[in-house]
Amino acid sequence: MKEHPQRIFNDKEQALLEEIMIHRRDVRGNHFLDTPISQESVNRIIEAALAAPSVGFSQPWEFVLIRDQKTKQAVKETFSEETARAAMQFTDEKQKEYIKLKLEGILEAPLNMAVFYKPADGPVLGQTSMPNMGKYSVVCAIQNMWLMARSLNIGMGWVSILDPEKVKQVLGAPEPNQLIGYLCFGYTDMFYNQPELELKKWDRKKLQKEVVIQEKYT
Amino acid sequence: MKEHPQRIFNDKEQALLEEIMIHRRDVRGNHFLDTPISQESVNRIIEAALAAPSVGFSQPWEFVLIRDQKTKQAVKETFSEETARAAMQFTDEKQKEYIKLKLEGILEAPLNMAVFYKPADGPVLGQTSMPNMGKYSVVCAIQNMWLMARSLNIGMGWVSILDPEKVKQVLGAPEPNQLIGYLCFGYTDMFYNQPELELKKWDRKKLQKEVVIQEKYT
Repeated sequence: MKEHPQRIFNDKEQALLEEIMIHRRDVRGNHFLDTPISQESVNRIIEAALAAPSVGFSQPWEFVLIRDQKTKQAVKETFSEETARAAMQFTDEKQKEYIKLKLEGILEAPLNMAVFYKPADGPVLGQTSMPNMGKYSVVCAIQNMWLMARSLNIGMGWVSILDPEKVKQVLGAPEPNQLIGYLCFGYTDMFYNQPELELKKWDRKKLQKEVVIQEKYT
Repeated sequence: MKEHPQRIFNDKEQALLEEIMIHRRDVRGNHFLDTPISQESVNRIIEAALAAPSVGFSQPWEFVLIRDQKTKQAVKETFSEETARAAMQFTDEKQKEYIKLKLEGILEAPLNMAVFYKPADGPVLGQTSMPNMGKYSVVCAIQNMWLMARSLNIGMGWVSILDPEKVKQVLGAPEPNQLIGYLCFGYTDMFYNQPELELKKWDRKKLQKEVVIQEKYT
């Protein structure tokens, strides 16, 4: 058994975690460098995923590491199809802005990663009333990787404008697996000071008072 | 505009993030203390949520803070119903183990929090092909809170053995809102050295080689 003595964190350590969270960005292709990521860094990012909480300790995740440009190109094709379709759903100014945005870094990022939810065969403790819990565990693993990557000064972007079935097909994923996230990792020329969509005034940051409710809705 | 100068994190800072992740636990009622959580700590936990990534910067979250024991009691009732039903799904030894486990800390934790996904009225950038992305954003916020709480030496437990519709009813939540997580926060008498379900041999920790695939499935 690994020994982790009872650990009490202090003010400085709390402030550092906040800093990592505040400096975490969604990075797109116009900022990725082609500097390779060391195997050690990849391992640390994956270990962060494996330290994530999972419902009933089910650890229902699989991580496909993609470096082959041909595979990336095939994924990029589904992005291009889906983003063209998506643009049609926005109107007027929002459509113009949407078209101008760079929304992925599939080809530019040296490392891509497809993260799958792999359903269990039997019942999962904690998932019996809320069937999405397994997928949510996989998202916790992704968020751990995002923070770990940022602390390693590596950018990550989450690409969701994809047909998950096409990505599965490209990767030969087993039928029951479900794509949760398609991630791009790479060093960057910079990290924005704010979320890019805040900076570009796509939307503004919500305040605590807009999203916190005391006791009950009225 | 808030200025966050380009921040490069170092080895010690990376190791600290790993420590926080490794020491994060799912805490249940047999370990919560009734020590109140200061408003400052609650604010820092919520700020961590607001720093989470969200699809298209949609920030589709709402947080209901619950301290009223009557409300907790009503939520505990749906837990009791659902866990009795869940126990039936496990067989033999697993059922015996399931019944012995303490799986929530609703009444014991001084602060409960219901976290909702609030769907947007129009299309959301990045959510057009993967409709679950909004819910996944809310999960990222929960994982940020979990880590922030742990750094503040506050335990968190995620209770998922609940009927989400009953929780919505108890809290008077608007019809379109969807419950993503029901969380319990409190100081603890201890944090386990390992996930509790690993310690109790419910399941074992998966290794990288079991969950990492290179390039494609074969």
